[in-house]
Amino acid sequence: MMKFSGWGDPHKAYDLSTRPFLWDFVHSQLGLENRLVGPTVRPEDIAVPAPRLEPAFLAAVTAALGPAQVSADPQVRMLHTYGKSYRDLLRARAGQLARVPDLVLFPRSRGEVELILAAATAHRVQVVPFGGGTNIVGGVEPDPTRPGMAVTVSLRRMNRLLALDPVARTARFEAGALGPELEAALNAQGFSLGHFPDSFEFSTLGGWLATRSAGMQSDAYGKIEDMVVSLTLCTPRGTLVTPNVPRSATGPDLVQIAVGSEGTLGLITEAVMRVHPLGRREHRGLLVPGFANGIALARALAHRGALPCTVRISNPQETALSFATKPRASGPAAFFAAAFKAYLRRVKKFPLDDTCLMIAGFETASAAELAARRRATLAICREFGAVDLGPGLGAKWFAGKYDYPYLRDTVMERGGMVDVTETAATWDVLPALYADVKKILHGHLRRGAFPGYVGCHLSHSYPDGACLYFTFAAAREDGNELPQYLATKRLIFELLLKHGAALTHHHAVGYELLPWMPRLLGETGVQLLRGLKQAVDPLNLCNPGKLIPGDTPALDAYWPPPIVAGPPPS
Amino acid sequence: MMKFSGWGDPHKAYDLSTRPFLWDFVHSQLGLENRLVGPTVRPEDIAVPAPRLEPAFLAAVTAALGPAQVSADPQVRMLHTYGKSYRDLLRARAGQLARVPDLVLFPRSRGEVELILAAATAHRVQVVPFGGGTNIVGGVEPDPTRPGMAVTVSLRRMNRLLALDPVARTARFEAGALGPELEAALNAQGFSLGHFPDSFEFSTLGGWLATRSAGMQSDAYGKIEDMVVSLTLCTPRGTLVTPNVPRSATGPDLVQIAVGSEGTLGLITEAVMRVHPLGRREHRGLLVPGFANGIALARALAHRGALPCTVRISNPQETALSFATKPRASGPAAFFAAAFKAYLRRVKKFPLDDTCLMIAGFETASAAELAARRRATLAICREFGAVDLGPGLGAKWFAGKYDYPYLRDTVMERGGMVDVTETAATWDVLPALYADVKKILHGHLRRGAFPGYVGCHLSHSYPDGACLYFTFAAAREDGNELPQYLATKRLIFELLLKHGAALTHHHAVGYELLPWMPRLLGETGVQLLRGLKQAVDPLNLCNPGKLIPGDTPALDAYWPPPIVAGPPPS
Repeated sequence: MMKFSGWGDPHKAYDLSTRPFLWDFVHSQLGLENRLVGPTVRPEDIAVPAPRLEPAFLAAVTAALGPAQVSADPQVRMLHTYGKSYRDLLRARAGQLARVPDLVLFPRSRGEVELILAAATAHRVQVVPFGGGTNIVGGVEPDPTRPGMAVTVSLRRMNRLLALDPVARTARFEAGALGPELEAALNAQGFSLGHFPDSFEFSTLGGWLATRSAGMQSDAYGKIEDMVVSLTLCTPRGTLVTPNVPRSATGPDLVQIAVGSEGTLGLITEAVMRVHPLGRREHRGLLVPGFANGIALARALAHRGALPCTVRISNPQETALSFATKPRASGPAAFFAAAFKAYLRRVKKFPLDDTCLMIAGFETASAAELAARRRATLAICREFGAVDLGPGLGAKWFAGKYDYPYLRDTVMERGGMVDVTETAATWDVLPALYADVKKILHGHLRRGAFPGYVGCHLSHSYPDGACLYFTFAAAREDGNELPQYLATKRLIFELLLKHGAALTHHHAVGYELLPWMPRLLGETGVQLLRGLKQAVDPLNLCNPGKLIPGDTPALDAYWPPPIVAGPPPS
Repeated sequence: MMKFSGWGDPHKAYDLSTRPFLWDFVHSQLGLENRLVGPTVRPEDIAVPAPRLEPAFLAAVTAALGPAQVSADPQVRMLHTYGKSYRDLLRARAGQLARVPDLVLFPRSRGEVELILAAATAHRVQVVPFGGGTNIVGGVEPDPTRPGMAVTVSLRRMNRLLALDPVARTARFEAGALGPELEAALNAQGFSLGHFPDSFEFSTLGGWLATRSAGMQSDAYGKIEDMVVSLTLCTPRGTLVTPNVPRSATGPDLVQIAVGSEGTLGLITEAVMRVHPLGRREHRGLLVPGFANGIALARALAHRGALPCTVRISNPQETALSFATKPRASGPAAFFAAAFKAYLRRVKKFPLDDTCLMIAGFETASAAELAARRRATLAICREFGAVDLGPGLGAKWFAGKYDYPYLRDTVMERGGMVDVTETAATWDVLPALYADVKKILHGHLRRGAFPGYVGCHLSHSYPDGACLYFTFAAAREDGNELPQYLATKRLIFELLLKHGAALTHHHAVGYELLPWMPRLLGETGVQLLRGLKQAVDPLNLCNPGKLIPGDTPALDAYWPPPIVAGPPPS
């Protein structure tokens, strides 16, 4: 399990000591000092409320699963209370618990999941599916407004590769497999799924499917919804097993109904995924002059044939953060870095204050194909004035790509508000959308001399558009943490709606985006979602309060009350 | 409009006189003589029943649309009664009318469609959407079991290109545009949708979307569901306009709910489609030894990178039909054909009785890229023993590709039963599926010395599998036409279910596949479809009796009584 009040491995933290430039950069943006501020309640000091236990339900699931798969342990329950959103971490660090699940269940088979749903139906118990717990939109938190028992169902003991077909290049997995478990099982037989979201180390196949996850190789292999051939969805009204065929014309796509359903229709227990032979991989770093130019470059790459599997272009502020994380250069390295800067400025007339770091990743069957793709890609990049920095920087980025979520904890522990918003829009919309979000966010986040941080990268390209991933940060307003955060998110969501952009490209809706769904989908769209819910979960047992607006979607009803500062740091 | 009792252009028919080998081939397979047999009732001699007209509804739609867009003309109504399935043509040729629509409406805008749905709701009128009328699964036939008025809504007067965005490469179209109208509008600005189903000349964008259509360039551009960015669906409970974004993570995919809904949730009036710059095109013919080997070749092409946009490989029987349609060779042409055959047999040891015609199509931005793709494709083809016949045969195939549906009429007019079934399955399943269908169909269709015809081609490749498209034919059993046909279809569907293959890859469900849906999707899958229906069309006004099984899905209830032979040919 991950830390309770932070990201990732309990034994790992972002190391400032080896990155001498980093805090200076953070300070220049947010005005924060490098010292710990509270609240920081230790998880073991938090009093977990006693569970509400319906004896008949407890007896039924214990009989069905066996006592080793049923836990009422306070720490286990607490660790399944939240995901990893800014709101979650605020509350966790303050030692505040919302609705803690009364039980955590660990089924080992589809049959056990079906028995849990039958017992939940009989006793009107809400059921929250839980994969790795990395969700950042409140998708794994039991509904606090709902009476009765709440159980969280962890899929983590269903993590096996069930079958690999090398002819069809498909793999059948149980849904609870973590990213590394899944890739290891495939790699052992020469295959890869090629799905590497930032949460890869701690998130599961079922979670990816339930939220329409995207990974960094999506330009070649698509989002998770493009990789899935068929799946098994256990609902209170029976289990759906979709036909395992590449395509069909038998009505609305049931796979694409289950994908993205965020637990509201039931639990995804199994899926058949398209896999590909593990290839030769390379990542290169490049510098691109100007972010709007970078958007045009990404478009050119998307339109001239899918050459790289990863195209990621950071705006200047995110680029500056990237370079600020490097260790101190000394001796020859420092000399060459300075010389290269001078070369860029003088010979290439490169605008160093408007420089964008680009990562281009390749995965190919052969070295020759890799060389051909690299050559074609770099030729297009040069048309847009980009300078190739070679594979060294790419390899460093690849090695450190899962570390950034830890940096959020470091900044939060020092008084920062940090969060992300990702969207997607058509190519014609992206430049103005970017400029608008950046301008309005800076206007909102600026505190005197400190502009606030608005990092952004373009990633996940399609023929018709791409994803923009914003990271924003500022000094936290003590006693006003949540309103400060919500006001920022509202500003962004209004801009996204104004530009006709997606409210989320791959983080899903959960609890946090729910208030915006009626405006996004309209009444008819909402009715279609309710129709699906009514068909398979008429008692609203499955992950209630997420994704599907209720009948009275008052915007503010969904936002919790402000955080009250907890006890001082211990 | 197309012919009433046959395919396509009323002034066009399949010309046997220029194809001297064709009927000998048909005779050798089916035992049919080249002479016309009945029934053949001329459309103008068919007595169209008087319409049931609800005066208040008629007044409402006439006020809303104007009288020029409302037709109760008997011939207009008759021409909107059927699609073009074998069952439809049997009845049309016999002069039998099932449920003729009482009115045909021709709206010119989304607002007019919304007014029609409001009037239909007020007066409980069933509404059948109609594009080009090429549907072959009974998808455009009013439900005969339903009391009250039936109106057919033709979208054909909504056929405009509304906007083309060359940056995002998207085009917004009204849904009633025919294939040639749509391509002409795009070609004029240098773009193409790249969707060329066999029905292209007579089918519409809205029809393609409603049925999950596939066109011959799908290996590059996907099925219609891959090309659509967003759409407008008018339902009795309001209009859905999906966000126009490349991707999002806001729940189940509403676009993929509307796509394939076959009119049962409402009418698709508009869509934004991904388009691409019109490129350089080339089609080449090849010969491949053995169909199982051909399947392996198609798989290799799919797995080694999307090189051709079209890969179509015919089994030996379909290949023989193709060659039987050529004009008589004489002089040097005949000499070289004989010499080539001898070369194939002796030098290449080619199994002439197990030879498969392959078409490989390319569309690229430049001649250089076309050359590169052709070279790479042909190298893979050679690995599988294929022989390149050059672009001449490919060009001939391309020029004649929309003629085959006319041949069905020619055979039906001479006493043949002809129909098609297409499916999709993963690569590991395809060889056994093909062998099984072929063996069992021949066992069923054989009449003494005549084996019956079981043509098949592989087309529409995916990383995990492909589509198989079967055409079967035999002598028709007079007085037993429909049971003969249904028995054949049942045999095929049972085989498809046994092998876990799709019941249809791109022809949709309509009325004809409806009985199989509960077995295919299971109770939970059917409930999800019913939930969607209930959400937006609780009165079951929109295309009732199609796609979504009712509460009592008795298999035989869906099949109409046998055809009674009509009057003799006039």
